[in-house]
Amino acid sequence: MEAQESYPVDVASIREDFPILERNVGGDTTTPGEGPDDTLPLVYLDNAATSQTPKQVVEAIVDYYYGYNSNVHRGIHHLSQEASVAYENAHDRVAEFIGASGREEIVFTKNTTEAMNLVAYAWGLNELGPGDSVVLTEMEHHASLVTWQQIAKKTGAEVRYIRVTDEGYLDMEHAAELVDDSTKMVSAVHVSNTLGTVVPVSELADLAHEAGAYIFVDAAQSVPTRPVDVEAIDADFFAFSGHKMLGPTGIGVLYGKEEILEEMDPYLYGGSMIRSVTYEDSTWEDLPWKFEAGTPVIEQGIALHAAIDYLDDIGMENVQAHEEHLAEYAYDELTAFDDIEIYGPPGDDRGGLVGFNVEGVHAHDLSSILNDHAVAVRAGDHCTQPLHDKLGVPASTRASFYIYNTREEIDKLVEAIDDARQLFA
Amino acid sequence: MEAQESYPVDVASIREDFPILERNVGGDTTTPGEGPDDTLPLVYLDNAATSQTPKQVVEAIVDYYYGYNSNVHRGIHHLSQEASVAYENAHDRVAEFIGASGREEIVFTKNTTEAMNLVAYAWGLNELGPGDSVVLTEMEHHASLVTWQQIAKKTGAEVRYIRVTDEGYLDMEHAAELVDDSTKMVSAVHVSNTLGTVVPVSELADLAHEAGAYIFVDAAQSVPTRPVDVEAIDADFFAFSGHKMLGPTGIGVLYGKEEILEEMDPYLYGGSMIRSVTYEDSTWEDLPWKFEAGTPVIEQGIALHAAIDYLDDIGMENVQAHEEHLAEYAYDELTAFDDIEIYGPPGDDRGGLVGFNVEGVHAHDLSSILNDHAVAVRAGDHCTQPLHDKLGVPASTRASFYIYNTREEIDKLVEAIDDARQLFA
Repeated sequence: MEAQESYPVDVASIREDFPILERNVGGDTTTPGEGPDDTLPLVYLDNAATSQTPKQVVEAIVDYYYGYNSNVHRGIHHLSQEASVAYENAHDRVAEFIGASGREEIVFTKNTTEAMNLVAYAWGLNELGPGDSVVLTEMEHHASLVTWQQIAKKTGAEVRYIRVTDEGYLDMEHAAELVDDSTKMVSAVHVSNTLGTVVPVSELADLAHEAGAYIFVDAAQSVPTRPVDVEAIDADFFAFSGHKMLGPTGIGVLYGKEEILEEMDPYLYGGSMIRSVTYEDSTWEDLPWKFEAGTPVIEQGIALHAAIDYLDDIGMENVQAHEEHLAEYAYDELTAFDDIEIYGPPGDDRGGLVGFNVEGVHAHDLSSILNDHAVAVRAGDHCTQPLHDKLGVPASTRASFYIYNTREEIDKLVEAIDDARQLFA
Repeated sequence: MEAQESYPVDVASIREDFPILERNVGGDTTTPGEGPDDTLPLVYLDNAATSQTPKQVVEAIVDYYYGYNSNVHRGIHHLSQEASVAYENAHDRVAEFIGASGREEIVFTKNTTEAMNLVAYAWGLNELGPGDSVVLTEMEHHASLVTWQQIAKKTGAEVRYIRVTDEGYLDMEHAAELVDDSTKMVSAVHVSNTLGTVVPVSELADLAHEAGAYIFVDAAQSVPTRPVDVEAIDADFFAFSGHKMLGPTGIGVLYGKEEILEEMDPYLYGGSMIRSVTYEDSTWEDLPWKFEAGTPVIEQGIALHAAIDYLDDIGMENVQAHEEHLAEYAYDELTAFDDIEIYGPPGDDRGGLVGFNVEGVHAHDLSSILNDHAVAVRAGDHCTQPLHDKLGVPASTRASFYIYNTREEIDKLVEAIDDARQLFA
């Protein structure tokens, strides 16, 4: 054995916390985890779609249901007090993790998409009108693009798109042209889920604020993979999902500046978000509960807390370094093939994912062959159809990395791609 | 030991599936499950707020995260196929459980409240206007009452409330007066979470349909506790939550008739709910995915499937019989005290809960003393403030029962109430 280059994180020890990484895949898919031909070890490179879940997070879920499951907020009894404390603390923990000032600024939703729709409905529907503009980037995820597009249609506002350069960067000169006095909202992805581009959202925030507009940062790919500070960015709104950062499905987070959330109308109506109700009218609860109607995502908030603890123990600087290390390694390996086109910035200047196409092979066919090698990647438009139109392809294949991935897994990816190239040659 | 009257369900065996029922409560509430004075066995009678979770459901969650956690819908790789099949099957299972015709009619939301808001926004905001009326009952939960009240304010529609009689029944003659040609929606609770009243929603559906209106049934308290059939009721919309029926937090279900959902605009915009997107406009995915934007509640859907399997194994007729048995037992015990006022219909004609007040004792104080006896009940307005105003009380105490509760637990409740009476006498 020759000495191996080390990693920015302790991958071997991290992998022990993820039982799913020990499973083999193949065969029948209708009986989860029990296919008859489960023979090849899983290589999971679909982390930008969802991350895997460590024992510490799953155990937090089990502890909740076996120990103190109860509805929150209004209960006097012991279990309800325990659940309420844990659920409220989860808001504080998220606030601390992203540099917000407190739980008032942290609303739990069901996913990033709902967080965007919340602002589009509760703010956009009331504040936008003819003559106003919303400025997006050409690399927005459908969650942001479709939402603002449709709210703009309802209100008569205009949508403008900041150009992406041929190198996959945001054209900041174009941004400066598009953001003007008509602009009420700039909504931008922080790290592109398709190109891996890291967008200078802090500069966009300055542009937005100079024009008197707000900025909404889609942080679904950034919060899981790097240190973030909403106050340093000066984001007005900021959203991400639990399931992409070791947490469970069913929880997203909306951060909003307290004074803006305070002014905003509620979004969902119902229990827990009201202060008083008569048959004629109602008044609203304090932040953040004003935006959390009905029984909230209690299990999910508590599990997200555990996920953040896990990531913080590793250190987000180290998570980012590991992401960048693997992205650069994969980028370098793939550029060795001259019939592979990689989208987005160079290997040393991107988030932890690589999107590409092999000449003459449809992304779905490639992905299917990779699956035969037990290599899990995502093929498709990655919820950025218009960006793919611009790239001139219907789909791309994306390999995305996280804290438990290794160079050896990327080697398997490259070997499988090479097999596919030869099959289609 | 004298022979005990048996139960409609095998309570002893059921209780073994719920680890939380073996815990003691008391002392510090800031360290969940680990307070220093945990000395009294939990008596959990807060099931109308949330039910407890059996091992079978928790194990379905663990199996998902350790076995086949993946994002759904669009993935070609093995894990994504397994997760997609399981998630889609969960829709089929729910459809079968409530008598819907198929998954096209089953939308997973985050809770009942979101299901109501979905219809209020996607249908109500477009279809209601001045001159239209929405007819509710006086015993609506805030989820329905506040939502329709606020959507009516936005659209200029009128809200009407069907009277509740002094005996706690819905005044069906008044209903027939209120529902008229102006009526576009009747929204009614199926089982009152405050009074225990079982509302004849099928009759209300006939009234609504004769007037050309839709009916929305709030089934949050009925689906967990009795057999339901949406087609027999002829409900147009029907909603309930997973966490009240042994499932996890973070999932609700909206049933809608296929032809109505087909016509409706989408609600949340984003990934998974679109068919095609350009920078200019978008088209929508088939049902039910049109209404499930973003990464959906995958874990939660799979766990709800397991919860339904558990309930079906017991048999919903037996669940209902057990509920009614305990409600009648509690009602009879409590009517023995002449300083206790019980709200709602008689003991032999109600759902599995009893709401009451002890003369001279505030519900919160009573609930606090019950908690000292480790008896968990809910005190407050139970998200029906206007109904409490009508009852002339600010709050009530509610004991609510489920499949694992026993007569002995109700005896403990009654003893604790008697202690409180004497303390305040």
